[in-house]
Amino acid sequence: MDLDRIVRETAKTLQDYLTYQAVRQIIAQLSETNPPQAIWLRQFSDGSGKFQDSEAYLQSLIVERKDLVLRILTVREHIAERLGDGLMDLVRTRLRESNRVTRCQLLERLTQVQSDSAEPLSEVP
Amino acid sequence: MDLDRIVRETAKTLQDYLTYQAVRQIIAQLSETNPPQAIWLRQFSDGSGKFQDSEAYLQSLIVERKDLVLRILTVREHIAERLGDGLMDLVRTRLRESNRVTRCQLLERLTQVQSDSAEPLSEVP
Repeated sequence: MDLDRIVRETAKTLQDYLTYQAVRQIIAQLSETNPPQAIWLRQFSDGSGKFQDSEAYLQSLIVERKDLVLRILTVREHIAERLGDGLMDLVRTRLRESNRVTRCQLLERLTQVQSDSAEPLSEVP
Repeated sequence: MDLDRIVRETAKTLQDYLTYQAVRQIIAQLSETNPPQAIWLRQFSDGSGKFQDSEAYLQSLIVERKDLVLRILTVREHIAERLGDGLMDLVRTRLRESNRVTRCQLLERLTQVQSDSAEPLSEVP
């Protein structure tokens, strides 16, 4: 397993995702303090896949609104600092729980299939 | 800032993403051991947004191929265990570096704008 690649790609995905969360946070703040700016930023940030490359998103925003870029940089770093290492504990706990539930479902389905195919036999006198 | 919500949503995003990485890993393994199965799994997993809800993806796969579901559960848990807490350190390092570079670009652009607007003045005799 190429774990180095997976770590790199996962870190990149998280970086993009935290940028998206920072923008969402700023839109929510602007909705209260400056509604027209909130609408503008929401429209600028809409569209599928904008945050699949958050660096390209920031580059395009630099041209339009330097102040908002600075604010996004600050907020996403702040979120990353506060997320802490507890995040990975939560992910592992969620995965273990989801795996447990899914394995139970698999077992139920296998039992179901076996009892279904057993029924015709039991009906034979 | 609603940090609890951000933590929950980020954990869910990571769970979906690690499921995607597990499927990619299994497709790569199957390409060597069982190419027709690799093609089948790739086709089943293609399509935009399939891994935005990895639990729904697994539920639909249960109907078709229980053995592959079991394999995905095992691999994604394995990846999560091995990623370790170092992932968040890497994310924070990447964000700090990206923020530094972007702030430099902002400064360069501001200086550029100022020297551009200063030129006409200096041309005045």
